[in-house]
Amino acid sequence: MTSQGGAVSLGEFGRIERFFRPLAVGVPGAFDLTDDAAVLDVPHDQQLVVTTDAMVSGVHFLPNDNPADLAWKILAVNMSDLAAKGAEPLAYSLVTSLPKSIGDDWVEAFAKGLGEAQRAFKVNLLGGDTVSTSGPLSLTITALGLVPRNRMIRRKGAKLGDALFVTGSIGDAALGLKLAQGALTQPVPEADRAYLLSRLRRPAPRLDLVASLRVFGTAALDISDGLVADLRHMALTSKVRLVLDVQSVPLSGPALRLLVGAPTLRRTILTGGDDYEVAFTAPADKAEDIAAAGQNAGIAVTRIGKVIDGEPGLDILGLDGAETDLGPGGWRHF
Amino acid sequence: MTSQGGAVSLGEFGRIERFFRPLAVGVPGAFDLTDDAAVLDVPHDQQLVVTTDAMVSGVHFLPNDNPADLAWKILAVNMSDLAAKGAEPLAYSLVTSLPKSIGDDWVEAFAKGLGEAQRAFKVNLLGGDTVSTSGPLSLTITALGLVPRNRMIRRKGAKLGDALFVTGSIGDAALGLKLAQGALTQPVPEADRAYLLSRLRRPAPRLDLVASLRVFGTAALDISDGLVADLRHMALTSKVRLVLDVQSVPLSGPALRLLVGAPTLRRTILTGGDDYEVAFTAPADKAEDIAAAGQNAGIAVTRIGKVIDGEPGLDILGLDGAETDLGPGGWRHF
Repeated sequence: MTSQGGAVSLGEFGRIERFFRPLAVGVPGAFDLTDDAAVLDVPHDQQLVVTTDAMVSGVHFLPNDNPADLAWKILAVNMSDLAAKGAEPLAYSLVTSLPKSIGDDWVEAFAKGLGEAQRAFKVNLLGGDTVSTSGPLSLTITALGLVPRNRMIRRKGAKLGDALFVTGSIGDAALGLKLAQGALTQPVPEADRAYLLSRLRRPAPRLDLVASLRVFGTAALDISDGLVADLRHMALTSKVRLVLDVQSVPLSGPALRLLVGAPTLRRTILTGGDDYEVAFTAPADKAEDIAAAGQNAGIAVTRIGKVIDGEPGLDILGLDGAETDLGPGGWRHF
Repeated sequence: MTSQGGAVSLGEFGRIERFFRPLAVGVPGAFDLTDDAAVLDVPHDQQLVVTTDAMVSGVHFLPNDNPADLAWKILAVNMSDLAAKGAEPLAYSLVTSLPKSIGDDWVEAFAKGLGEAQRAFKVNLLGGDTVSTSGPLSLTITALGLVPRNRMIRRKGAKLGDALFVTGSIGDAALGLKLAQGALTQPVPEADRAYLLSRLRRPAPRLDLVASLRVFGTAALDISDGLVADLRHMALTSKVRLVLDVQSVPLSGPALRLLVGAPTLRRTILTGGDDYEVAFTAPADKAEDIAAAGQNAGIAVTRIGKVIDGEPGLDILGLDGAETDLGPGGWRHF
């Protein structure tokens, strides 16, 4: 489908040849994007892991977001799912649905950002589709990864005796979104602003922790819907009771500084989502090995709770260390 | 993302659980759609084939098209790519981008149609994503298939001495689209109308010919852009000169009857696309074996041309058997 009117366009085939083909050179079976399908080898001792995430302008990102940032993010969020499952990236397919107002300049910047993300995540494009739409821009990636046979880490699998861990820091992206929307009233130092926006726009999938996650993790997922909601998903799927200790949730310097002036932002931090950190359970007696593995990978890993005896669900210990009163819908107060 | 306002909605999780989970029971590694990713085995003597096709309302289908038909079509067009590559379906992921005006009734009918298509094509859902959009409905499938190692049929591979074949009949879907758009002035018998619309809405991927295609095919693709355009793609990718003999192109009864009153519709037939038939080249001396394989599979296979000596490109022999004068852009006249 060639884009006509509205913007300068090489057309579908021209854009594929010029901007996307270079992204596929690392996958021999992508045949320079000249065929109807790609072909891939899966080593005989490995299984294929498949995940799909889509982003729509106005829903998952802001209409004026930078194309290179969008490219980074759509690839990063898919790689984050692979990382949380203990899978190494293999390749990915991409669908771009572009309004006719999107010109070649945009596509070129998008492809450049995608190339940068590919190099960071060590993965290559294998194919996809390009369609035009009368609606908002949308991006879809289906990512393929590899795990040793029967070693994918599930959402289910958390057990009594496990501790609960999370990578990185929580809430930066949600605060970054409020900044981008102009929804924060307090002044924010320029460096903090840049950091929070970068955490929103350029999430860091925790691929360097994949091997250790496979060794220690009993259950894992990546935090996209918000720490509280995703921990509840894990608890219900694993059929265990999880306790989250709010005092232990790792926060970045910029997040801590914002909290001083606006303590109610803690709710944003814990429920806002878009973190793309990995939450996982592992035997409590492996905590030291896990800390060492995190240091080795250069990724902070923090213990934030544990599995306890009880009905499936999530308990939240507030800042005072007392259990908070939560309804079934989620977060209520501290 | 839960859909709010505009239509009755169980929300994202409710819709997945109620309507989509039953479609994934055939894939154990889809984990009832309760995890972030699916896991699949690829037998050690097979390779994975990956293809992606998206459809957008107002571009690839009409806004009022029946949801069950849309479900059939988005799965069929992806299965058609697998069939043309000689691959057996393994599983597929689905992304639905739904306007808030889409209610649970629509989603239920869509899932029902998808179930019907799954049974016809012997494939199951492995996962995907559901997002809301302020724009038109769109559907994306990434289909996974299997081929014996190094046996995927490429677009490239046509050789001097090969004959050119096509499955089924050509042009029905393009005529069906004109009917659906009210763009045909002549009267069309009800049975013919139903046939042509069904060919538009319920294409038949030629999966039953996959094993024979792998045996005989030197190059293959499925016809989506139109017979003429897709044969040109094949010729250029294979770096051969193809001759298409227009007299030999197989037409259905309804298409033939329409042509009697409106001979200019032949251009629509040859260039309209959406056929999802397989065009392939194979050694000319295998023509009888190929005919027998087609009969065996219950799929018409017709010889429509050959590879000749010459520059890469496509020659078209018109109804009078004489070469027609075509510019680089495509079809000119008969």
